[in-house]
Amino acid sequence: MRTTQITLAARPVGEPQDSDFETVETELPPLEEGDVLLRTLYLSLDPYMRGRMSDAKSYAAPVGIGDTMVGATVCEVVESRSEKRTVGDVVLSYTGWQTHAVAPDSMTQRLDPDAAPVSTALGVLGMPGFTAYAGLLEIGRPKPGETVVVAAATGPVGSAVGQVARIKGARAVGIAGGPEKARALTEELGFDVGLDHRSPTFRDDLAAAVPDGVDVYFENVGGPVTAAVTRHLNTYARVPVCGLVADYNATQAPEGPDRLPGFMRLVLTKSLTVRGFIQDEFREAYGADFRREMSQWVRDGQVRYREDVVDGLENAVDAFRGLLAGRFHGKVLVKVG
Amino acid sequence: MRTTQITLAARPVGEPQDSDFETVETELPPLEEGDVLLRTLYLSLDPYMRGRMSDAKSYAAPVGIGDTMVGATVCEVVESRSEKRTVGDVVLSYTGWQTHAVAPDSMTQRLDPDAAPVSTALGVLGMPGFTAYAGLLEIGRPKPGETVVVAAATGPVGSAVGQVARIKGARAVGIAGGPEKARALTEELGFDVGLDHRSPTFRDDLAAAVPDGVDVYFENVGGPVTAAVTRHLNTYARVPVCGLVADYNATQAPEGPDRLPGFMRLVLTKSLTVRGFIQDEFREAYGADFRREMSQWVRDGQVRYREDVVDGLENAVDAFRGLLAGRFHGKVLVKVG
Repeated sequence: MRTTQITLAARPVGEPQDSDFETVETELPPLEEGDVLLRTLYLSLDPYMRGRMSDAKSYAAPVGIGDTMVGATVCEVVESRSEKRTVGDVVLSYTGWQTHAVAPDSMTQRLDPDAAPVSTALGVLGMPGFTAYAGLLEIGRPKPGETVVVAAATGPVGSAVGQVARIKGARAVGIAGGPEKARALTEELGFDVGLDHRSPTFRDDLAAAVPDGVDVYFENVGGPVTAAVTRHLNTYARVPVCGLVADYNATQAPEGPDRLPGFMRLVLTKSLTVRGFIQDEFREAYGADFRREMSQWVRDGQVRYREDVVDGLENAVDAFRGLLAGRFHGKVLVKVG
Repeated sequence: MRTTQITLAARPVGEPQDSDFETVETELPPLEEGDVLLRTLYLSLDPYMRGRMSDAKSYAAPVGIGDTMVGATVCEVVESRSEKRTVGDVVLSYTGWQTHAVAPDSMTQRLDPDAAPVSTALGVLGMPGFTAYAGLLEIGRPKPGETVVVAAATGPVGSAVGQVARIKGARAVGIAGGPEKARALTEELGFDVGLDHRSPTFRDDLAAAVPDGVDVYFENVGGPVTAAVTRHLNTYARVPVCGLVADYNATQAPEGPDRLPGFMRLVLTKSLTVRGFIQDEFREAYGADFRREMSQWVRDGQVRYREDVVDGLENAVDAFRGLLAGRFHGKVLVKVG
């Protein structure tokens, strides 16, 4: 059995280029006892992957040159030497940017297609949804009546942050790029306010949207949007930091002035809590609650989500560029099968 | 009765100048029922006072132009219309930069000269000591074997941070300006390592002093020292931010490059907790424990302190400049009486 893989050919400098990747066909190893042969249905594209392409120090090892790009996948079992998996099972796995893979059954988690569309295991009911849930509840701790602001707000993390904040009684102000996305925030996703950060009136719109200041800023973009929001942070505001997608392609520290001293002064004078996190840290404390609550909220329509499905593994690199550039609206999936 | 006061004549730009202050003689009002007349024995000088001279937004209102500079004091009661205070009582108050004051008894707290030198109510047993204690225990949460780093380490906050960290079983690495202060950290104050940030080998010395990285960086200075330490922060490190004395005289954002994106990236990839605080926030939760534990530690010599006493209110402005410039070694007091 052969698999088509997208491997990392070179470490991107700035925006990833086609030439940084290579498409190769590889013969898969034979199945050993306990293994399954998987056919990829959906590949998840997520901002953290930009970090894995780089060898800068981070929380996880980089993808090696020549190795298949990593990524979460939803797969169908097409052959099984495991008693726990049957041909036809749909599973969540982490087989990366490829059409097929051989994996031990322990690296797969069976999904119930009747409970929710299987693709949601990569979005609202998967890692992005959990990132939103745990980061907001453990670090953000929104209280009823407080104001929660999140950017990239139509995306899989941002949209869940806003909707969970609403469920907890807070006001949700979402920021996104372009008027269509901004409108979707209130019309589709139930935010109290949707703002377009590309609008020339963005700073005024933001000020008008947070008359009582900002109690939680869920940081997943960085850049100028963050600079605009921090001015409105209230005393004791919380800033969970789960991503900085606006800066991921940066090749050097931007020109001055140096805003770090001013930011630290704000941390001091406003008694801010700024806390970076990777969702894994909260699995044990919040995993079970997340699965129960979020599935329920999705079923009863309290939490909605949107998926942008790109067809064909050959389009993954371009789609990934689009993800970093804000070209998509919702959770970005590559339909591989 | 007349008092000699130092009032704020102009808002300093950069380092405070003599011309930013005025010395005036004022007639005190007559005592009303419940009031005491106080003679200042010691005036505390603290970095936060630089913030009060400025009208930039902060956690407390600025001192008005023409108003007496604020500050904590230890005073003797020289006249009393209160049943709760007797002539000769020594009290902690907040009467500011002046020789005498009239205050309601509720604004004074009686000190026991037999329990500890009364000046310690302005230092190790007062606000600076409590800042160290509460910030370290509530935000820093040092665990046995972890490494705690603090700068301005011979000062009243830094020296208490290091010594309390040691009591909690952590390694204490102190940073101070000049070889004499660095030596005092290990020889007088019981730090595991004392470093001189003015030494040309400071960055290498620091790296050698924290072979297992830094788990808690108690931030009270900012500037280049902070930049050097942050490189060594471990995953899940905690950064209580209680002061930024190196930047207090800054008149504008320093030249680039802009280090804020790099700092936020560090917050993210290391899952850091950066938390600003003003000690008042923790009074209720930690005040009683602090009074009991710290007095005991000072009595039995587990926590030592050093005071730099400047003679005469007329030298307060110059001493305050010296405080910001790192000219002193320990807690800076002006002996007024």
